[in-house]
Amino acid sequence: MSDEQLSGVGVSPGRASGPVVKVTESITEPASSPGPDDPYAEAAMIAPAAQAVAARLDAMAESAAGDAATILTTTAAMAADPALVSQAEQLVTAQRIPAARAVYEAAGNFAQALASAGGYMAERVRDIEDVRDRIIAELLGIAPPGVPELGRPSVLVARDLAPADTAGLDPATVLALATEEGGPTSHTAILARSLGIPAVVAVRGVLAMAAEAIAVDGDTGTVEAVDPQAPSVAATSAGSAEWDGKGATSDEHRIKVLANVGNPADASAAAEAGAEGVGLFRTEFSYLDADDEPSIDQQRAAYRAVLEPFRGKPVIVRTLDAGADKPLAFLAPEIEPNPALGVRGLRVAFDRQGVLDRQLEAIAGASADSGADVSVMAPMVATAEEAAWFAERVAAAGIGSAGVMIEVPAAALTASEVLDAVDFVSIGTNDLAQYTFAADRQLGAVAKLNDPWQPGLLRLIALVGEAGKAKGKPTGVCGEAAADPLLARVLTGLGVTSLSMNASSVRAVGASLAAVSLADCEQAAQAALGAPTVAAARAAAKGVS
Amino acid sequence: MSDEQLSGVGVSPGRASGPVVKVTESITEPASSPGPDDPYAEAAMIAPAAQAVAARLDAMAESAAGDAATILTTTAAMAADPALVSQAEQLVTAQRIPAARAVYEAAGNFAQALASAGGYMAERVRDIEDVRDRIIAELLGIAPPGVPELGRPSVLVARDLAPADTAGLDPATVLALATEEGGPTSHTAILARSLGIPAVVAVRGVLAMAAEAIAVDGDTGTVEAVDPQAPSVAATSAGSAEWDGKGATSDEHRIKVLANVGNPADASAAAEAGAEGVGLFRTEFSYLDADDEPSIDQQRAAYRAVLEPFRGKPVIVRTLDAGADKPLAFLAPEIEPNPALGVRGLRVAFDRQGVLDRQLEAIAGASADSGADVSVMAPMVATAEEAAWFAERVAAAGIGSAGVMIEVPAAALTASEVLDAVDFVSIGTNDLAQYTFAADRQLGAVAKLNDPWQPGLLRLIALVGEAGKAKGKPTGVCGEAAADPLLARVLTGLGVTSLSMNASSVRAVGASLAAVSLADCEQAAQAALGAPTVAAARAAAKGVS
Repeated sequence: MSDEQLSGVGVSPGRASGPVVKVTESITEPASSPGPDDPYAEAAMIAPAAQAVAARLDAMAESAAGDAATILTTTAAMAADPALVSQAEQLVTAQRIPAARAVYEAAGNFAQALASAGGYMAERVRDIEDVRDRIIAELLGIAPPGVPELGRPSVLVARDLAPADTAGLDPATVLALATEEGGPTSHTAILARSLGIPAVVAVRGVLAMAAEAIAVDGDTGTVEAVDPQAPSVAATSAGSAEWDGKGATSDEHRIKVLANVGNPADASAAAEAGAEGVGLFRTEFSYLDADDEPSIDQQRAAYRAVLEPFRGKPVIVRTLDAGADKPLAFLAPEIEPNPALGVRGLRVAFDRQGVLDRQLEAIAGASADSGADVSVMAPMVATAEEAAWFAERVAAAGIGSAGVMIEVPAAALTASEVLDAVDFVSIGTNDLAQYTFAADRQLGAVAKLNDPWQPGLLRLIALVGEAGKAKGKPTGVCGEAAADPLLARVLTGLGVTSLSMNASSVRAVGASLAAVSLADCEQAAQAALGAPTVAAARAAAKGVS
Repeated sequence: MSDEQLSGVGVSPGRASGPVVKVTESITEPASSPGPDDPYAEAAMIAPAAQAVAARLDAMAESAAGDAATILTTTAAMAADPALVSQAEQLVTAQRIPAARAVYEAAGNFAQALASAGGYMAERVRDIEDVRDRIIAELLGIAPPGVPELGRPSVLVARDLAPADTAGLDPATVLALATEEGGPTSHTAILARSLGIPAVVAVRGVLAMAAEAIAVDGDTGTVEAVDPQAPSVAATSAGSAEWDGKGATSDEHRIKVLANVGNPADASAAAEAGAEGVGLFRTEFSYLDADDEPSIDQQRAAYRAVLEPFRGKPVIVRTLDAGADKPLAFLAPEIEPNPALGVRGLRVAFDRQGVLDRQLEAIAGASADSGADVSVMAPMVATAEEAAWFAERVAAAGIGSAGVMIEVPAAALTASEVLDAVDFVSIGTNDLAQYTFAADRQLGAVAKLNDPWQPGLLRLIALVGEAGKAKGKPTGVCGEAAADPLLARVLTGLGVTSLSMNASSVRAVGASLAAVSLADCEQAAQAALGAPTVAAARAAAKGVS
């Protein structure tokens, strides 16, 4: 393959070009000698450095919104973690090593423990390395690694951006992103979409590219060298100003444009962005950091805070999605060889029905408190029998509408029977792709398979859309696929009746749908379904509209 | 749930009843004191005890055949492992503990390492524990744990049988099997089918059942208490004597009845059992225990030994299926959070094309040497593009026929395009079920989803069968589903053109097909496809034939 054009996975649409700025990788490993003259004084430097880093990240969080704010707050909490600080302090005094070295080693122990836990925990390794590097830079008085100050609009190239890096990006100076690793559901991808800048991930060789200027095409998933003398070109925006706030095609075929939210800040941002409701309310935030199960009253208050901005509007609450890959201490998950194929989502509730029943009681209470039009749905349902069992629990809790996520291929293949058991379904394209292609969504090496434009995935979605039409019941999409303005048309053409996404994508998707007719959408869907490859599917859909 | 009837996953058909014999679990943890007077003499006892155990297992292997022989030989090799013996010896001398205790601790270290490696390696934990217990029993002069001598025909109940236990079972005295753990692809399941005795796995509570006599129904997956005074009832055999050795329905619709083999001993057993050829030749045996890649000549000789019994007959050779879940040292697999969703099967070859090309060269050579009618197929193909890439490599090696496994749901969903790229496909139902239900096939807690009678799985198989018919190309099944005589009829009705299974199931499946017409099979298939549950699918198929 030539050095001049490389291919990866396009994760945020549009094309832009400009000068390359490579993001500094982690700092150099600090030396373990010379040892400090006064180890106690040396150890005492660590806590203030960590606090300074945490404070800086918290300040960044305050000026950010939505996902970016959440990510920065989480990273700040890691920096302030007393366990990390005290382990590093002990290393200084016990081994007489410099503070920077002790932080490096203590963070290494934490990273190793996270990596061996796998799944969700392993994703946090990049965060702890970022925190480590920031504290060490603070201790040594050097510039922290990460995205440097951009003097002019530039294209960022990195191995994979740390969450705090992506959260701090300024869309005014970042033209596009290209990363060597990462996948369609990585932080880089999600945030690029929310900032509306083109991005391509899993581009092998991009860090080694010698070009001074490159073009990044998020539609075709390519990166190529361009003339460094040519002026920079920013991606054109999707014309989002033209949306009137009601999800529909130009011929008034209704498609609800909803938001995915995970906490009260998200909910406010979604309401401000003009979302017609919430298609996916992830409830894990009310359980995180809890050693014990939160009480019904605690859950009820937490849910009410998210529901309140949507009084009189539809909100679909997803019940707890935990398991070995998203471990919660009180559920005592067992170690599994493949956590993504283990006891997660609704499967946890089969043995612990009380956890589900108490959550449903809290949701019913919060629904009454808030006046939102609440439905609930279960994650990781595989069969119609499981869907019927969940619907029974929901009815017992006095909640009027029960649905399930379609994220296991078997549920899509039996969508008709699943829809007999529940009131609606919502397709989670991220996990559905992961299982349909047997390709871990966190693994850069298989990222090309996890592309929502894969014809195999579109055919599975088509089966669900057809079943929904035949049964006259709603079928939504709440994975990352819903945030792609072109794919949104294809999904509409496949029979999907609502799309739920990050708040920042709501306007662009709404505007994209308003610009075409239902017949256009159906034609785009048929063209994409019949395409043999990802590139052909995207091109075929584009050709129609 | 009453103590009198329990349900699990039926993995070997038929119903039998009789007195319960519970299999002894692992031996008691040996005490670490009193320490030996002469640690060197104590340590010297370990190697002879391990050799005695290995010799006994090897002797069992000689009087066994097929899978049983392979399992016993593997376990014997573990018992004779010099690393285990020498680590135990060192523990005796360094810590002055008794030999039995040292073996216990050394085996514990090995088991932990295997468990943390996950996947294929983790499955070996039960083997190492079995070896540990046998060596300790030898050292202490007590009876080894496991299946006791059965004085009369009995139903065995266990947590999960050790491979060596299942391999040593005498079908004349074992009426049926019921285990608390395990899944449809566990050793217990595979060997119960090969012995033709009913078995139900993943029966929660079966070890705690107080009943003196039970009935095990491998069709419905139930276990229930029966009158201990009633006479024992053995399962009736499937009338395999009536098969003439040519796979076909009663109205001469041809279905090739083939065998799955993994080494020369399997191949001989398959030829003797009357298999019409080999539908799945697993080539991993030629790579195992190799620190380096075996040479082309070594591979060629190894394959020739397997191909020779099938001169003039069809043999489908599957290329190397390795990866993080089946690690081979020379491929240096990386640690992955979900190895089953990682870089395995053909995916390994994308970055190491030389390994594939050298294997194809060896297969082409062995094919010429043996006179067998050889095709090759690739494991873990997800898209038509991947299938086309493989077909190109096969053509370059001068092999006339290329196919792919359908074990990733996306490949089934795009079977039509995949078949455009290759000459045939073969459905691996074990992995296909695992991904379609997002349920680890090794995990007892999700075993009920991994049932080949699940309607969701049957619909995916139907898509492949239809594509095969439309393209006029062969579609085989080579997973455990093919070994179920009733399901074999359903698969035939879904358009499958060959079935490949353990040698021991060949006659029963051949006879089952010969007893019905193609129209019967098609009717059974439609009935099973339309059923809402596993039990309903099996009952519907049974009702037809």
